[in-house]
Formats: sequence, structure tokens, C-alpha cells
Amino acid sequence: MKISSLETLVLYLSKLPGLGPRSARRMALHLLKRREGLAYPLIEALKSAADTIKECSLCGNWDEEDLCSLCRSETRENYLLCVVESVADLWALERMGSYKGAYHILGGTLSALDGRGPEDLKIEALVRRIKESQFEEIILALNATIEGQTTAHYLKEYISQNAASNLKITHLAYGVPLGGELDYLDDGTLMTALKERRFF
Amino acid sequence: MKISSLETLVLYLSKLPGLGPRSARRMALHLLKRREGLAYPLIEALKSAADTIKECSLCGNWDEEDLCSLCRSETRENYLLCVVESVADLWALERMGSYKGAYHILGGTLSALDGRGPEDLKIEALVRRIKESQFEEIILALNATIEGQTTAHYLKEYISQNAASNLKITHLAYGVPLGGELDYLDDGTLMTALKERRFF
Repeated sequence: MKISSLETLVLYLSKLPGLGPRSARRMALHLLKRREGLAYPLIEALKSAADTIKECSLCGNWDEEDLCSLCRSETRENYLLCVVESVADLWALERMGSYKGAYHILGGTLSALDGRGPEDLKIEALVRRIKESQFEEIILALNATIEGQTTAHYLKEYISQNAASNLKITHLAYGVPLGGELDYLDDGTLMTALKERRFF
Repeated sequence: MKISSLETLVLYLSKLPGLGPRSARRMALHLLKRREGLAYPLIEALKSAADTIKECSLCGNWDEEDLCSLCRSETRENYLLCVVESVADLWALERMGSYKGAYHILGGTLSALDGRGPEDLKIEALVRRIKESQFEEIILALNATIEGQTTAHYLKEYISQNAASNLKITHLAYGVPLGGELDYLDDGTLMTALKERRFF
């Protein structure tokens, strides 16, 4: 039996992250009920993004132009460099809005399990960039996961030895998240929050 | 500032059911990382479905042709008619695979709250269809929600009075779902399962 265009649509939708077959079917029905208002505009938006968005050759951000709008901007604080794992992390920091420095996207973390070594991340490009620029501080804003932290420690050593030994290298503070209830926190977070306690 | 094609894409993705801004961003990144393998094929599939899929004028199913493949089929048991709320429910019954009769999609339920009366559902078309066909049994396979059940009761009366008074009208069995643990069931289900108990 021939596969209908509807089945093909459900098949591709079910490959999107977080969607199983059921939610893909639901989404297909939702789209086909709203063709003028949603399906055709989404086709246009997806085509336009897929045709134009590229990776910034300096920081790794995604934008319609290379360099990206953040790297082109003349109002950013160019003595600060924030190293993140992914574009999504860069977006999170930009939404937060109070960081105005530059970014460098690693493209992942070191992972023995997944076979990702230093050569798979944009580490050489980072070192080169640090050498060629006048950064005063490198903020390693990696995820607070085992792999993120391993990568951060590796980067700290590697940057000190290969780029600049006198550079400030920092990481984000760890502790109780705002709104967090102690009873619901994992032991690791609680332990860190206690160890890193501050004066009122 | 001009809205980039990436922001437009995230905007439309976030209008899909079950997606908030965060999952829409995640999905946009996922799509743009897999342009050849996913984004462009999805564009094609969505465009093809949006251009070709239409509602079957007889049962309300969605297909590339009118009548739909179920209504065109000559191997279905044409003495059985199953009334469902939506295309998604029809698909669920078809996946189950053991029902081989015809379908009629109502397009929703009666709802005083949402202001949906009988004239908003395909009830007249259902009555007309019953009069013109030789169905022996009408299965009201509506959801086991208050609104689904209200609609089923309304339909039972309406069909008896306006289409055929001697027709078998049935509904799906209610009870403990297979794999269900009594401790986790709601009282209503448990009460129904007890009341409708069967001999071994």
C-alpha cells in the first residue's frame, strides 16, 4: 500500500526531539486544521531559516550573517569572554540579559563515553582567539553536569598553559537555585551551597 | 531590530500543540543541525500534506482523495458504523486493527461551556447516512469524558427518534484498563468496573 502524504508527514514530525508517534500525529492534525494560519507560514519560516542561517566563524553562534550580530556589535564588552557548550546555552544567557561580553561556543563537552576528545570541540579556536584578543576574564559557563565540569577543568588547565597564564578564569556560582526548597534539592547541590556559604 | 528567520521559525514552532518557547527553540536547533536529513524533507512532507489532504465528504476522515480509502474499500463490514469524535480517535481504532466497519466523525462533542450545540456537529449528516444505508449497529465510540458521554446519550435518543428506532446502538465497555492496578484507578472507573462485573 502506498504511503500517504499524511503518513510521511507524521513520520518526519516524529523525528523531532521530544515527539513520539502519538504527539506527532496530534501535531499533524493540528497543522492540517490550520493550513493558512500555521502550516504554510511554518513551511516558509523553516525554509527561510534552513536557507539562510549559518554558523558564526568567530564564536559559533547561529545567525543570518557571518560574523553574527553579537560579534558585529560594537557595544558589547570585549574584555569578557563566556565559553558555553551550545547555541541553546548562549541563547539562555542572552535572554537573561545582564551579560554583555563575547561568547565562544565549544560545540559540546569532553566525553569518554561518547568518544568526544578535545579535538572534537572548538578548543584550539578558543586558544587562538584568546591569544589574538585582549580578554581580561574567561567565564567557563558550562553545564553543572559531570561532563560539563570535567570539560571546564580541562579548559582551565589548557588555557593557562597554552594561551595566557595571567588570565582570570572563572565559573558560574553553584548553590540553591532561587525559589528552590532545600527539601527537594539533591545532596550535591546542598553540599556545595553549604560549603560555598557567604556572609550576610 | 529586524526579526531574524530563526526567531520567526521559533515563533511558529511554539504555536504547535505541546510546545512552549523552550522546546520550540530546541526543535529549531535540532532542525537546523539536520537540514538535509530532516528540515528539507519535513518542508516537503508538510507542503505535500497541506496541498493534498482533504476531508472525506462521507465519513469526515482525512485522505488524499474524497471518498477516503476506508469509505472506498470494498472489504469493510458495511453493516457496522462507528461514531467517533475526531480523526485522531478514528486513527486509534484503525491502529488497534480489529474493527472493520465504517466510521462517522462528529467533529467534537456537545459542550454548553464552549457553546457547541448539535448544529455544530455532523449529526444531521449522520442521521441522513443511517437512513440511506443498511447499518445494523451504531457503535458510539465517544471518549469516556463528561462531554463525550453527554453527547453519546443525546445521539442515542436523537438517532432512535429521527433515523431508525429498531437499530442496535452500543457503546464501548467501561472498566479496568488492561494492566491497570486497582490502587491507581479513579473511583468512577472502579465503581463502573464493579457494577459491570462479568461471570468467569
